[in-house]
Amino acid sequence: MFASDNWGGVHPRIVDAIARCAESTDAAYGEDALTKRVERRLADIFERECAVFLVATGTAANALGLGALAPPYGAIYCHPEAHINTDESGAPEMYTGGAKLVAVDGPHGKIDPAALQRTLDEAVVHGIHRVKPSVVCVTNQTERGAIYSPADVATLSLMAKTRGLRLFQDGARFANAVAALRVSPAELTWKAGIDAMSFGATKNGAMAAEAIVFFHAEDARDFGHRRKRAGQLWSKHRFLAAQFDAYLEDDLWLTNAAHANAMAQRLAVGLSTIPGVALLHPADGNEVFARLPEETIAGLERDGFVFYRWGPGVIRLVTMFTTSGEDVDSLTASARRHAG
Amino acid sequence: MFASDNWGGVHPRIVDAIARCAESTDAAYGEDALTKRVERRLADIFERECAVFLVATGTAANALGLGALAPPYGAIYCHPEAHINTDESGAPEMYTGGAKLVAVDGPHGKIDPAALQRTLDEAVVHGIHRVKPSVVCVTNQTERGAIYSPADVATLSLMAKTRGLRLFQDGARFANAVAALRVSPAELTWKAGIDAMSFGATKNGAMAAEAIVFFHAEDARDFGHRRKRAGQLWSKHRFLAAQFDAYLEDDLWLTNAAHANAMAQRLAVGLSTIPGVALLHPADGNEVFARLPEETIAGLERDGFVFYRWGPGVIRLVTMFTTSGEDVDSLTASARRHAG
Amino acid sequence: MFASDNWGGVHPRIVDAIARCAESTDAAYGEDALTKRVERRLADIFERECAVFLVATGTAANALGLGALAPPYGAIYCHPEAHINTDESGAPEMYTGGAKLVAVDGPHGKIDPAALQRTLDEAVVHGIHRVKPSVVCVTNQTERGAIYSPADVATLSLMAKTRGLRLFQDGARFANAVAALRVSPAELTWKAGIDAMSFGATKNGAMAAEAIVFFHAEDARDFGHRRKRAGQLWSKHRFLAAQFDAYLEDDLWLTNAAHANAMAQRLAVGLSTIPGVALLHPADGNEVFARLPEETIAGLERDGFVFYRWGPGVIRLVTMFTTSGEDVDSLTASARRHAG
Amino acid sequence: MFASDNWGGVHPRIVDAIARCAESTDAAYGEDALTKRVERRLADIFERECAVFLVATGTAANALGLGALAPPYGAIYCHPEAHINTDESGAPEMYTGGAKLVAVDGPHGKIDPAALQRTLDEAVVHGIHRVKPSVVCVTNQTERGAIYSPADVATLSLMAKTRGLRLFQDGARFANAVAALRVSPAELTWKAGIDAMSFGATKNGAMAAEAIVFFHAEDARDFGHRRKRAGQLWSKHRFLAAQFDAYLEDDLWLTNAAHANAMAQRLAVGLSTIPGVALLHPADGNEVFARLPEETIAGLERDGFVFYRWGPGVIRLVTMFTTSGEDVDSLTASARRHAG
Repeated sequence: MFASDNWGGVHPRIVDAIARCAESTDAAYGEDALTKRVERRLADIFERECAVFLVATGTAANALGLGALAPPYGAIYCHPEAHINTDESGAPEMYTGGAKLVAVDGPHGKIDPAALQRTLDEAVVHGIHRVKPSVVCVTNQTERGAIYSPADVATLSLMAKTRGLRLFQDGARFANAVAALRVSPAELTWKAGIDAMSFGATKNGAMAAEAIVFFHAEDARDFGHRRKRAGQLWSKHRFLAAQFDAYLEDDLWLTNAAHANAMAQRLAVGLSTIPGVALLHPADGNEVFARLPEETIAGLERDGFVFYRWGPGVIRLVTMFTTSGEDVDSLTASARRHAG
Repeated sequence: MFASDNWGGVHPRIVDAIARCAESTDAAYGEDALTKRVERRLADIFERECAVFLVATGTAANALGLGALAPPYGAIYCHPEAHINTDESGAPEMYTGGAKLVAVDGPHGKIDPAALQRTLDEAVVHGIHRVKPSVVCVTNQTERGAIYSPADVATLSLMAKTRGLRLFQDGARFANAVAALRVSPAELTWKAGIDAMSFGATKNGAMAAEAIVFFHAEDARDFGHRRKRAGQLWSKHRFLAAQFDAYLEDDLWLTNAAHANAMAQRLAVGLSTIPGVALLHPADGNEVFARLPEETIAGLERDGFVFYRWGPGVIRLVTMFTTSGEDVDSLTASARRHAG
Repeated sequence: MFASDNWGGVHPRIVDAIARCAESTDAAYGEDALTKRVERRLADIFERECAVFLVATGTAANALGLGALAPPYGAIYCHPEAHINTDESGAPEMYTGGAKLVAVDGPHGKIDPAALQRTLDEAVVHGIHRVKPSVVCVTNQTERGAIYSPADVATLSLMAKTRGLRLFQDGARFANAVAALRVSPAELTWKAGIDAMSFGATKNGAMAAEAIVFFHAEDARDFGHRRKRAGQLWSKHRFLAAQFDAYLEDDLWLTNAAHANAMAQRLAVGLSTIPGVALLHPADGNEVFARLPEETIAGLERDGFVFYRWGPGVIRLVTMFTTSGEDVDSLTASARRHAG
Repeated sequence: MFASDNWGGVHPRIVDAIARCAESTDAAYGEDALTKRVERRLADIFERECAVFLVATGTAANALGLGALAPPYGAIYCHPEAHINTDESGAPEMYTGGAKLVAVDGPHGKIDPAALQRTLDEAVVHGIHRVKPSVVCVTNQTERGAIYSPADVATLSLMAKTRGLRLFQDGARFANAVAALRVSPAELTWKAGIDAMSFGATKNGAMAAEAIVFFHAEDARDFGHRRKRAGQLWSKHRFLAAQFDAYLEDDLWLTNAAHANAMAQRLAVGLSTIPGVALLHPADGNEVFARLPEETIAGLERDGFVFYRWGPGVIRLVTMFTTSGEDVDSLTASARRHAG
C-alpha cells in the first residue's frame, strides 16, 4: 500500500493511550492534565516556550494557523503545488476570511527565492489595490518529497522578515524532515525564522491529531476563540492529547518517520536501477516520484500495488511507519519484471 | 461527576472498534467500507435515504449544517440559550459566512411559537434591509433538559415551511430525546418537519464523533466541499466511522441515553423531596436544573461533587452513560444533609 | 415629506461642488487635492489629527469601521433598534468576517449602562466559548431621535475601556446631535471616549457621502486595503471629496442640521397640543415619534403626508434641511383636524 | 492625460441629470421612478428582460456579481492580469465568502481556451479536495486593450457550460468593446453565453455608476439582500439612476466610447510610425500598450505627459471621452522628437 500515509492504521502505543484515557473522566475543552503534559513535551522538543493547540486534521491546523497570521486582505505566498493551494478546497481562504494564496514556483516543491523576490517587488507597486503581502508558507517535507534545509528556510525568512511578512510552515510531514536532516526541531524552525507551524502526527502513526505551534505568544492571542469558532475544539480534548502524548514519548514520532524515510530510500534505490525508470525528485523523506513506462505502471497495478498517478507516466509512492522492507522489495521486483 | 457529559470517557465497545480499525489500512477521506456501513445504519435508523457526513465536534456539525441551509445574508432563529447562540464563539456565523442568529425566547429552552411568529412577521416588513428569514433551529433535548415532542416540532415546522424557511435540529443530545419519548427517530425528525440535523455521539459514549444528517439530498449538494474546506474531513475518516458503527450497533446509543435519562430522573426525584430545593425544568433527559440554598450548594462542593452553577442559586447536574445509581444517591444524600 | 431624510435632494452648494469637479481631471483613488483638503477640514473640526476615509453609504461606513475594530470572533454591543442590528442586512457581520451583534436595550434608543454591565459580566464567564467582547457601538442621534450627551458617552466609554473594549459611534445623524447639544464635535466624540465613528452627510444634504473617522492612527492601519477590498473606494474619489468639501465649508453641515432640528421641535410642539397625541421620545434631533389614534394617522395619509409607521398607532416623522415651517404646520393642522 | 480613464471628469449631460435630480425628493433605496426607467433602458439595450442593480464602483459590481454565481468553495477562472485578480485587493474573495481565483493565461489579456480546458480537466481529478469549478470570468475589453469577439466568448462559454460553470463578464470597458466591434450588446453577451456582467459607466463619462446585469432571473434571487449587506445600496439611489439615465440616453455611452477608441487608434497609428516603438497588443479599444526606448519614455514624462509604466520599457496610454486629437498628436510628436 503506497497510496498515501493517511491510508494507514494507528500505532499500538497510541491506541493504548486512547484506551487508557477512555476509562477516566476529566475536564473538557483542554482543561485536563494530559493536555498540559503535551504542551510541556512540545516546549521541550522545541527548546523554548511555545503556544500549542491541538486539532484533528492537517487542513484545520494549516488554515487556523494561517488565519492567525494573515489578515482577510492579505496575500499568502506558497508553492503552486502546496497542499493549501491545491487540496484544501479553500480552507485557508475560509479561515483567513478571504486572504489570497499567491503561487510562487520552484523545483521539488520548494519556493524559489528569486521568484519570491520578484513577486513581492511587484506587489508593492500596487499598494492598497493588491492584497497585502503577509505570509510566506513553506511545506517541509515538500509535496514532492524534498526537504528544505535550515539554510533554505533562513533564506526565505530573511526575505520575508525584511518586508514585514511572517513565515509559516505546513509541517504535515515535519517528522520526516527532522528525521532526514538529523537537525534539532528548533534549528529547522524558529531558529531559521519559522513563526508558527502545523506539526503533523496523523500521517505518521496517530489517528487524527495535529498541533498548531506558535513560537511567539502574541500570535496566539485569542487563538482559543479562533479554534473554538472553527468547531475545532474537541470537548473530550484529552483524546487529542493522549495521541500526542504517546506520539512524542520516547521519540516515537522520529522513530516512525525515520523508518518511513528508510523505506522510501530503499524504494528509490531499488527503482533507480531499473532501466526506463527515472526518479523526479530527491527522495529525502517518505515519498518517491518516479517516471515509468506506461506498461510498467499498468503491470504494478495488475499486481495489486496501490499508488496515485501524478500526471502521465508519473507515479507517487508513499511509505509509512508500517511499510516493511518486503513491501518495498516486492514492488521493486514487480516493476523490474514489468520493465524487463 | 455531574459537570457535563463531555467530561466522560468512552464506551468500551467504541474503544474496541477503534482498536480493531487501527490494525488495518483502507482508503482515506471517507472512501472506506466502514463509512459506507455507518451511512447505511443511519438510513435504517431514520427509515429513509439520507445524506450523512461525519465530523468530530458538535459545533462543527451544527455550524456546517446551518451553513448548508442559510445564506450569508440569512437569519437563523433559535432560543437565546441555544448552544449555537451562546457557546460556539461565532461558529455558525463563520460557517454561514455571516448569517445572523436571532433569538426567540420560550420556556424550558424551547422556542415559543407565538414569539417566533411575531419575529417573522416583523422581519418581513423590513425586506432586503434585514437579514432574510432562512432557518429555524431547535435543540432537542434542549439546553434546559426539556424535550420537544413530535407535535412541538411540527408546530414550528409548519410556521417555518409556510414562510419558506428550513428547520434544523441541534441533536447533540438527540439520543436522550428519542430515549425519553420512546418515539422513532423518524417521527421526531423528518416526519415532524426537520430538514437536517446534527446527530450527537460524543456526549453519549463516543470519543469525538457527530453526524450531520440531511433528509433531502439537494441540501447535501456540494457538502463534501463544505466539510473539506472547513478542515472537518478526517484523512483517516475510518476512525470516525468506527466510533459510529459501534455506537449504533445493537442500539448502544439508545441504551446509553436511556441509562443517563434514568439517572437524571432518579436525581430529580431525589432532589425534589429535599426542603428548599426546586427543580426549574422538567428533567426529561439527562440534565437537572435545581435551585438550592447557597449553603447547600457550597456543601455539595465541599463534598467533592463537580457541577456548574447556572446563575445565582441554580446548579446544573448532568448524567451520562457511566453515572451510577450510587453516584446519584450519594449526591442526593449530601444535598439533603446540607439542606437539613 | 416626512418619510425619511434619505428621500431628500442635494443642497445646491454640494451640487455646485460636483459640477465644478466634473470639468477637470485629477488623480484617481483619493490621490487628488480635494481629498486632502477634506481630510484637513475634518481634522480641524475635531481639533486633532485623525484618519479619514470617504465612502458612499452609511452602511458601508459603519460596517467598515466596525470591521477595523472587531475581530471575526468578536461581540459588538449595540441597542436592539440600532440600524446596524435591524436594517443593514448583515453588513457588520460581512465586514467583520462574522462578528456577532449583541443587543443591549435601554430607553429612547440609548444603551442602558446597567444592562451593558450585566451582559459583559456574563460574557466573561463563558471565556473562549462565547464571542469575545470587543466593541460597544452607540448611535448618536439615536434611532429614536434622542441624543447621547458627552456624559452619556463617557459612562459607556469607561465601562468599555476598563474591560478592553473599543467604542464606535454610528454618526449617520451626528450633525443633528452636535447642533442640538451645542457642544464641540471633539467633546461629543474622542474627548468622551469615542475611538472611531461614521460621520454622515447623505441624510443632511449630500448626495452619497459618509466619512469614517479614526481618532487613533493605529486603528486605521491597513484601512486602505479594507476599503478597497470592500469595493468602497471610488476611482473618481474626488466626487466624494467635493461633496464633503462643500458640506463642511462655512458650517453648512451644522446649519442644515440645526434647521432640521428646529423643524422637528416645531413639529413636536405642534403635535403635543393635540388631544390624543403622545410623543414617545424627546425630539432632540430631527425625528419625532408620536402615538396617534388610528383614524388620525389614516387622515394624515389621506391628506397626502408621507411617513413611516413604527408599530401599531405609532408614526415616525423625519425632518431635513429642506423641510419648511409650512410643511410642519400643514401636517400639524391636518393632525389636529383629524383628531378633533 | 493618458494615465487612466478614471482620472477623468464627468460628461455635462450626466452632471445636468444629477443637478435636476437634486431639486426633488423621491423614495429611497431604489424605489424611485428614475431607477425603474434605467432598468427599462438596459432591458431595451440588451433586447431581453434582465435584472439590473446599480452600484458606485466597478470593484463592487464585479465582486457582487461573482458572489451571486460562485459559492464560497468555488473556483473562478480568470486571466492572470484580470483586474479582479490583481487590483481589487481581494474583493472577489470577500464578496464570495472565500472563493478562489484561478489564473488561466493567454495573449492580449484573453483567456486561452486550451489552457482553460487543461485547468478544468485537472481540477476534476481532485474532486472535493479542490475548490469547485464554478465561474469563468472574461474582461471585455481586456486589461490589455484587446477585445473578445462574440465567437471568442462563445468558445469559452461552450467549455464552461458543458461542465456546469457560469460565465461572468467584467464590463468596466464594455462600451469600448461594443463600439469597436459594432455588434449589438446582446450578441456580445447573452447570445454568446454571458450569464451576468458588470456594465461600466464610470470610466466612460459617469461620476460613479456601474450596473450589475443578470440575464437569468434566478441568479438575481436575493441579490437585493446581497447588495444591501455589502453596503452598496445607496439610500439616495436616484443619483446612481440619474447618471445611468443620461449615460444611456441617445447612446451617449457608445458615442463616448467610440470617441475614446478613435483616439486610441490615432495614437496607435501615430506611435507605430516612430522608429524604435512597438505596439504590444491590438489597440482595439481605448488603451495602447507600447514598448519605447527608455529615453523616449523619460522625454515624454519631462514634457508633462502622464501615463503608467507597465514593466520595463513599456507604457500604457489610455484615452477617454475628453481626449482630443490635439492631445494625441501632441504626445505622438513628443515621442517622435525624443525617439529621433
